[in-house]
Amino acid sequence: MQVGIINGTSYFGLDLIRLLSDHPEAQITGITARSQAGKRLGDVFPHVAGLPCGSQLGSIRLTKSIESSVDFVFSCLPHAASAEALIPFIDRGIPVVDASADFRLKDAAIYEKWYGVAHPAPQLLDDAVYGLTETHRAELSQTKIVGNPGCYPTAAILALAPAVAEGLVEPSFIVDAKSGISGGGRSLNFDNHFSEVNESVHAYAVSGHRHGPEMVQELSAIAGMDVSVTFVPHLVPMTRGILATCYATLNTSVTQSQIMDLYRSSYENDPFILVTAAPPRTKWTYSSNYCAINATLNDRGTTLIVTSALDNLVKGAVGEALQNANVVMGIEETTGLTTPPIYP
Amino acid sequence: MQVGIINGTSYFGLDLIRLLSDHPEAQITGITARSQAGKRLGDVFPHVAGLPCGSQLGSIRLTKSIESSVDFVFSCLPHAASAEALIPFIDRGIPVVDASADFRLKDAAIYEKWYGVAHPAPQLLDDAVYGLTETHRAELSQTKIVGNPGCYPTAAILALAPAVAEGLVEPSFIVDAKSGISGGGRSLNFDNHFSEVNESVHAYAVSGHRHGPEMVQELSAIAGMDVSVTFVPHLVPMTRGILATCYATLNTSVTQSQIMDLYRSSYENDPFILVTAAPPRTKWTYSSNYCAINATLNDRGTTLIVTSALDNLVKGAVGEALQNANVVMGIEETTGLTTPPIYP
Amino acid sequence: MQVGIINGTSYFGLDLIRLLSDHPEAQITGITARSQAGKRLGDVFPHVAGLPCGSQLGSIRLTKSIESSVDFVFSCLPHAASAEALIPFIDRGIPVVDASADFRLKDAAIYEKWYGVAHPAPQLLDDAVYGLTETHRAELSQTKIVGNPGCYPTAAILALAPAVAEGLVEPSFIVDAKSGISGGGRSLNFDNHFSEVNESVHAYAVSGHRHGPEMVQELSAIAGMDVSVTFVPHLVPMTRGILATCYATLNTSVTQSQIMDLYRSSYENDPFILVTAAPPRTKWTYSSNYCAINATLNDRGTTLIVTSALDNLVKGAVGEALQNANVVMGIEETTGLTTPPIYP
Amino acid sequence: MQVGIINGTSYFGLDLIRLLSDHPEAQITGITARSQAGKRLGDVFPHVAGLPCGSQLGSIRLTKSIESSVDFVFSCLPHAASAEALIPFIDRGIPVVDASADFRLKDAAIYEKWYGVAHPAPQLLDDAVYGLTETHRAELSQTKIVGNPGCYPTAAILALAPAVAEGLVEPSFIVDAKSGISGGGRSLNFDNHFSEVNESVHAYAVSGHRHGPEMVQELSAIAGMDVSVTFVPHLVPMTRGILATCYATLNTSVTQSQIMDLYRSSYENDPFILVTAAPPRTKWTYSSNYCAINATLNDRGTTLIVTSALDNLVKGAVGEALQNANVVMGIEETTGLTTPPIYP
Repeated sequence: MQVGIINGTSYFGLDLIRLLSDHPEAQITGITARSQAGKRLGDVFPHVAGLPCGSQLGSIRLTKSIESSVDFVFSCLPHAASAEALIPFIDRGIPVVDASADFRLKDAAIYEKWYGVAHPAPQLLDDAVYGLTETHRAELSQTKIVGNPGCYPTAAILALAPAVAEGLVEPSFIVDAKSGISGGGRSLNFDNHFSEVNESVHAYAVSGHRHGPEMVQELSAIAGMDVSVTFVPHLVPMTRGILATCYATLNTSVTQSQIMDLYRSSYENDPFILVTAAPPRTKWTYSSNYCAINATLNDRGTTLIVTSALDNLVKGAVGEALQNANVVMGIEETTGLTTPPIYP
Repeated sequence: MQVGIINGTSYFGLDLIRLLSDHPEAQITGITARSQAGKRLGDVFPHVAGLPCGSQLGSIRLTKSIESSVDFVFSCLPHAASAEALIPFIDRGIPVVDASADFRLKDAAIYEKWYGVAHPAPQLLDDAVYGLTETHRAELSQTKIVGNPGCYPTAAILALAPAVAEGLVEPSFIVDAKSGISGGGRSLNFDNHFSEVNESVHAYAVSGHRHGPEMVQELSAIAGMDVSVTFVPHLVPMTRGILATCYATLNTSVTQSQIMDLYRSSYENDPFILVTAAPPRTKWTYSSNYCAINATLNDRGTTLIVTSALDNLVKGAVGEALQNANVVMGIEETTGLTTPPIYP
Repeated sequence: MQVGIINGTSYFGLDLIRLLSDHPEAQITGITARSQAGKRLGDVFPHVAGLPCGSQLGSIRLTKSIESSVDFVFSCLPHAASAEALIPFIDRGIPVVDASADFRLKDAAIYEKWYGVAHPAPQLLDDAVYGLTETHRAELSQTKIVGNPGCYPTAAILALAPAVAEGLVEPSFIVDAKSGISGGGRSLNFDNHFSEVNESVHAYAVSGHRHGPEMVQELSAIAGMDVSVTFVPHLVPMTRGILATCYATLNTSVTQSQIMDLYRSSYENDPFILVTAAPPRTKWTYSSNYCAINATLNDRGTTLIVTSALDNLVKGAVGEALQNANVVMGIEETTGLTTPPIYP
Repeated sequence: MQVGIINGTSYFGLDLIRLLSDHPEAQITGITARSQAGKRLGDVFPHVAGLPCGSQLGSIRLTKSIESSVDFVFSCLPHAASAEALIPFIDRGIPVVDASADFRLKDAAIYEKWYGVAHPAPQLLDDAVYGLTETHRAELSQTKIVGNPGCYPTAAILALAPAVAEGLVEPSFIVDAKSGISGGGRSLNFDNHFSEVNESVHAYAVSGHRHGPEMVQELSAIAGMDVSVTFVPHLVPMTRGILATCYATLNTSVTQSQIMDLYRSSYENDPFILVTAAPPRTKWTYSSNYCAINATLNDRGTTLIVTSALDNLVKGAVGEALQNANVVMGIEETTGLTTPPIYP
């Protein structure tokens, strides 16, 4: 497939380019940039300037908009701008994955409440599919508009889905998530200033974060009833990785081995989910599309504690986007995504 | 006061020495070590070998046991060994602060369950006071045996105490805590191997951690009823610092400003508690004895989320120990502890 | 002494405030800020808002200029702006330490070449003393204008001075220095963006850095002849610290023990210089005013390799500034500066 | 080719497994381990337990010795043990790459001096080729014994080779190298204890490091005369990466553009060398087999400063080993090695 990438000079765009460079059925034909249009990719990121595979990559000329022939488009723009940039392709029937929030929430009013702008294309929301492949695989194979999940919801929903689907837990969850700094992107601010965030950890958006409504929407759908989520994100001093620690009150008596059996069987056909015997470490997933999950009961057997680890830029963003693209295009789901994590 | 330090070559011991070197009324007269006895402190830690104040520090000869004259003893040994080493001093009426778990739990059976050994001195538990200065100040001024709290319980109890004392929350808490690596001490293992823990975050002891029972004991006392705590510790890639994110279900309707007023008034006479308008960052407390606390309601107003930050080696260990020693000895509580945090 | 601090909201200013809060003979009476004037210090740095000693610190109102009574002024402004801000105080006979480059170089033409602006006060250069206390102590006690050294020159000159003064080495040096990120200050750019500099190391200003001429000036003075310096700075992923690795060709035959004896005797009266048997680690000096130095011969005995470690914000900036202020004011040189390093 | 890996549970072994899992012409048929023999690879490294490609990887049973059919063997054992383990394969005519020092030095006496043991197979040294592909490509295609270079020599020799080959510099070099912590391997010691090395940088082996003789041997061969190298390695707080800053005195007058032209033309046929306009950052090479190099004159035009960056575990170890294996086996040199670096 011929691929166009909108806003390829973001961290999302850059990591998508890395993944696509190893994808046997994809060819990047266009990359847009905002302030850097006109430059070559190698001018913005010197490390790709001279790569051998970079005879293509480093010399790709960044453009204001996709002008090349494309069979598939990924957008790495921020919300609102992203839908606007994708509409022309959607109108031409070209399948798209949007890494922003624009096609995630089904309810345009909730979108407007959390993002502070009217939804740019509410008429398309019915056709869009929430791109958590593991929970929407069948629908994804039938759509041309994918709203790629947020990094935190990917970790949280994958952690909670099996227990919720099985009806083992009360419909009220706590999600305490820890993210590396790259989640904040490449723009400059005090929350990615090294001296401010190194050797420190803190919570933010404690009273409410935009990724909360996604978790509520998806977990409610899985539960078949309205659920509530108290979600608190944290920044930890590392570049990549998210660990979500999820707490749910059990409404029935289960054993540790029953829980682990449930998780293993729930994900036995999901190639990127690793159900691990020990609580996972984000390093176990570094640079890969895997999500590692462990479910453990607290010592009184009253609360289920699920920890899930992933790379926020890959399974939490563009790896998942490529996984979705594979499904949409009818390509084997794991294509271009099987490289093991970098360790250590 | 003439001070003896047992196991001064641990991280706890070393940071206590740093604090005492600035304390106008304390003089270190003896430091013990286990494997390093016979060496001078400057042989073990080259950076103290030639300090100007180090004419005393660097050349202190480490001994197997305290042989000098002492008015006060701090133990930085692990549990069980610590009580045994302190008993001779306790028997002579010398006041002690024990940084281990030996004098924290009131119930020797609970101690044995979590630490796997019979308590070495159960007869002393009645006389010991749990050394969270902010909640036991009056008792501390009357005791000679202080069980210095664990690093995690210090953060968690200070975070929850005001709401619990006021009866605003259900008696079941979640404490999700994030610690720097120094909490694991100086011994070598894969959880402090740089390449294993750098660029990674993970939960451990998910089904139960030894610091849980401390939280239950103290919060139950404050609540006046039995409470339960689901406590999950995490390691994050930084040297110092703990952030505890505590979740409690509100049992009454309160506003954000009422909550913050409660926290401010609860701690207005506690010199080391900083109630902050924003969620605190561990860096705000680096190397200091301060604990910074913020209490925020979730977006539905149903859950209280309290984040507390401290330096695990200082307010979470030896700073708190020195604060307790000041109280025990009738010295102004803040003596030797007022230096601002290192920032950035 | 009553102290004014110009640009107290920089990292330099903030660390100076920390040090002065422990200084028994200093009282901060005024702090200026540029964009933040009008706010209180605690509004800019939440962690100082509620400190007990912070009843003074956190509530200090930042002003556009120093309006209070002062006996001493420190400037933490960038070059050119700094001299301009200090001139009114110099004219009134108030002693000053300038942390910028404005009073370091004796030759205004060299200043203009490297800083790209005409020197704002060339007429004052004769009266200014280069504030490397260890090499200019006597002059400092007679001056009212101190040009505080750059962080890199402090490390490099202290490393090389004994060998150069003794005439043991050829007058051509290589200084390969590694700095933490805080050296770049609080302003936002890609060289302090966490995701860009974490897990990475790089050289910069390879063809020439502004701190080179300082090294040349001072080492030439010590050598009694013109020397040359090839200086390459590097950024390493840590907040604080500089390690300078200095290479000099020996022009005579010496033994390792002779070299160490020379270094020990050269610095025996310098309270902040630690000559260490092993190559120092920046952590040995963290947050302190110490500089740790080791001198070692290469395996062929042809080259002297001196490594020096310091905290770039303290001995490399405001600790040294305070040390100089003590000397200028006739106060004991170590006052307010004896706290041991934070370790680990 | 069917590949055997000796000591596959080291960091070297693990990263080689990662690379081979993407190599279209290689199949891992055996992995040995020392203390972990009998376990499966996924028991030692949980993150490979359930990988989809890991149906092979995670379940590979670690053995004491290679018992499977192999066409090629990599050894990741330490020196001395490595040659001994490889001799049986060498005797059977199976080509090998040894990641240890055993087949690097041509002179067994120098080996014995630096490694403290007699060489285990001096009779094989004549047949072995030093595996810096860029400088020994032709010989490598004719050998069956490859001594894979040390991580530091790889960086230093690639940095200096073009200028040395051209005869532009005096035959005496300074190599100041900065390495991430993973270079020290997985064994536990204070130089990889997080709290000891985080937020710190230090030099080690200042008076002589085992990798020095490799640099001397290879650069002398390139120069056609005896050269000397003063090499000082440093540890910096990051997991992966080496930056070598190399200093050489020019013996002729050249311009900056002439130098860069020389470097570009020297490496124009080397697919893994990126000659970069700016000093490279180790992050530009993270997880990849690339080495990025910049050559810059100092401000007086007297000294050439070459900085080279690579991933110490890949181009500095097993990536280079695989590159060599490709050449030995007559496979396209870049096979399995073209994935772009992880960034950020």
